Amino acid sequence: MTSQKKPPSNLPGEFEVIRKYFLPLAAAYPASLRLQDDAALLSLDQAARLVITADAVVAGVHFFADDRPDFIARKALRVNISDLAAKGAEPIGYFMTIALPSNISEAWINHFAKGLFQDQQEFGIGLLGGDTVSTPGPLTISITAIGQLPKSAIQMPQRQHAKPGDLLLMTGTLGDAALGLKLLQKTLTLESEDFYQFLTQRYWIPQPRLSLGIKLVQNNLVHAMMDISDGLLGDLQHICWASGVGAIVRSSLIPFSPATSLLCQQKPDLLETVLTGGDDYELLLSIPKETLPLIKEIAQQEQIFLNVIGEITAGKNIEVFDLLNKNYPIVVKGFQHF
Amino acid sequence: MTSQKKPPSNLPGEFEVIRKYFLPLAAAYPASLRLQDDAALLSLDQAARLVITADAVVAGVHFFADDRPDFIARKALRVNISDLAAKGAEPIGYFMTIALPSNISEAWINHFAKGLFQDQQEFGIGLLGGDTVSTPGPLTISITAIGQLPKSAIQMPQRQHAKPGDLLLMTGTLGDAALGLKLLQKTLTLESEDFYQFLTQRYWIPQPRLSLGIKLVQNNLVHAMMDISDGLLGDLQHICWASGVGAIVRSSLIPFSPATSLLCQQKPDLLETVLTGGDDYELLLSIPKETLPLIKEIAQQEQIFLNVIGEITAGKNIEVFDLLNKNYPIVVKGFQHF
Repeated sequence: MTSQKKPPSNLPGEFEVIRKYFLPLAAAYPASLRLQDDAALLSLDQAARLVITADAVVAGVHFFADDRPDFIARKALRVNISDLAAKGAEPIGYFMTIALPSNISEAWINHFAKGLFQDQQEFGIGLLGGDTVSTPGPLTISITAIGQLPKSAIQMPQRQHAKPGDLLLMTGTLGDAALGLKLLQKTLTLESEDFYQFLTQRYWIPQPRLSLGIKLVQNNLVHAMMDISDGLLGDLQHICWASGVGAIVRSSLIPFSPATSLLCQQKPDLLETVLTGGDDYELLLSIPKETLPLIKEIAQQEQIFLNVIGEITAGKNIEVFDLLNKNYPIVVKGFQHF
Repeated sequence: MTSQKKPPSNLPGEFEVIRKYFLPLAAAYPASLRLQDDAALLSLDQAARLVITADAVVAGVHFFADDRPDFIARKALRVNISDLAAKGAEPIGYFMTIALPSNISEAWINHFAKGLFQDQQEFGIGLLGGDTVSTPGPLTISITAIGQLPKSAIQMPQRQHAKPGDLLLMTGTLGDAALGLKLLQKTLTLESEDFYQFLTQRYWIPQPRLSLGIKLVQNNLVHAMMDISDGLLGDLQHICWASGVGAIVRSSLIPFSPATSLLCQQKPDLLETVLTGGDDYELLLSIPKETLPLIKEIAQQEQIFLNVIGEITAGKNIEVFDLLNKNYPIVVKGFQHF
C-alpha cells in the first residue's frame, strides 16, 4: 500500500531488505513461497489442531531501543514460542510484521536477522511471511506463531482446566527477569558482575520450555499450563478465574536463583517484585497428583528444574504462605499493559 | 510481559478492554477460546491448504491518525482480506495485535471495534486472538489472516504462474484510491462534492473482491492473481519478475471511474499517478485465453467490472501502449515502503 509519508531511511529498498535479510530465514520452508507471493501456503495433509498465538513488542515499552538487535529479535520470537510451549504445541512457523523507524541501519537489520536465525535453529521454526513497513515511531514487532498439538494429545491444556486438588508446579526459577529489568533501569544495583550478567540475560533472552511442554502434552500429564509472562501471581489468577478455583502458593517452595536469593536476603521488599514481576517465561502447571512422578522424570531427562510450589483449592482466593505457614500479605495484581 | 514504561492511559485495564470490545468479535468463533487463553486452537478435521497473510498499518504512514476509527479498522482488516481474495482463499479467521497510544479513548476503541464487527459480518471472518499493548508512538495495527484454498482448486494462483499469451485482466477501476489520497493530502482539489466523496471513500474503504476471487480459484480459471496494492505497474512487475515474462498494458482499456476520468482529462499528468499509485485493492489476473468467457460470466453474476487490459508476453519488459498504439513513456516503479 502507498505510504502517505515515507520517512527518510538509510536502508536499501524494501524488496532488497527482504531478499537479503528475511529470505534466508524463510527459504528452507516451502510454505513461505520464498516470501515472493502475497501469502504463505501451508499444506496440512491430514487433520490437525493448530495452536496459534500473536504477541507484539514495542521499543521503550517491552524492550530498550538500544538493546542488542539480536536480543530484541530473539525475545520477540521467544515470547511467542513460549506460548506454544505452554500449550505443548510443536512449532510450524511464524509470521512477522516489523515497523522500522528511520534510524535503523542495514547493519542493525543484519544483526536482528541473525538473532532470528539462531533461534529458528534452536526451536525448529521458520519465517513463513510478514510485512515490513516504516514508522515515525518506535520499532514495533508483531509475531504470529503457529504450532500444532501432538497427535497423541487428548486435548490442549487450557487455563480453565485446573481442578481442586491439583498440584501447582513451575519450571526454572522465579523473578530473575524482573530483577534484571530493575538492574537495567538502575532502580537496583548489584556488586557481583556475574549475577548482574545472569539476571539481565534472563530478562533479555527468556528460555521457552518448548521441548518439556510438548512432552507433557504428548503424554497427557497436565490439566492447565501457561507461561509466566505477567508475574506468577497474576498469571496464576488467570488460571484460578478461568477454572473457578483458588490456590495456595508456598513461597518457601518457590525456586530462586542464587542471584535472586541474595538480593531478596539483602532487600526483603524485593520478594513482592519476584512474586508479581513479569518476563520469566517459565511454565506454570496445574497437574493431577498422580502424574507427578512421570512429570518429574521427564523434567529430569530435559534437565529442567520443575518444582511443586503449591496446590489448587476449591476456594476462590490465592493465598501465599511463607515458611512458617503464615499468610504472606500480598495484593495479587497481575500486570496489565495499560 | 512487563512494560518498562506504562504510558498514562484513559482506558480501563487491558483485560476490561479485551472483554468489552474484542471478545464480542471473537465469541462466535470457538477457535478463539473466547480470547481467554494464551493461544487459539483451530481444529481442522481433514487435510487443508491454508493461505496465510500478514499486513501492518501505522498511523501517519498508511492512514491518518484522525481518520474515523471504524474506517481505520476496516481498512486494516480489508487489506488482509484482499490478499486472501487474490489467492481465492475462503476466510477462516484473523489475529490482531494493536499498539495503542495514550490518547486513545474508550469511545475510540468502541468505534474501532464496531468497524471490525461490520466487516467480519460482510466477509465471514472472525477474530481468533491477538495482543493489545501500549505504545509511545503512533497507533499500529498488525493483522494475520488465515484462509483456506477451496477443495476443488488444483493449486493456488501465484505470481510465478503467468504464461506468455495469457490475457491480463483487472477488476473495478484504477487510480481512485491514489487520487483520493491526493485529495485528502490537499495536493489535488476537486469541485464536485460527489466525486470527492467517491474518491476518498475508495481510499478509506477498499473493496476486497473476495467472493469473485474464491469462485475463480474454485473453478481453476486463472494462472496468476494478486491484488493491486502498490500500483498497477509495480504489482504487474512482481508478476513479470516471478514468472520470467513481459507484459503489454493498453492504457485505453484500463477502466476509469467517472471521477478519475474527469480528473485525468483536466490534468493529464495524473495518468502516471493512476497507473502507479497504490491502495486500489482490485484484482490483477493473468489468465489462459480460453477461460475468458467463463470468467466474464462469473464476474457478471458477481456484478463486478472485469476487463482485459493487456497481455503477457515472452519478453522481459512491461510496455504501456496508448490509444494510438504509441508507447506511453513511463518509468515502472512499484511502491516500496522505504
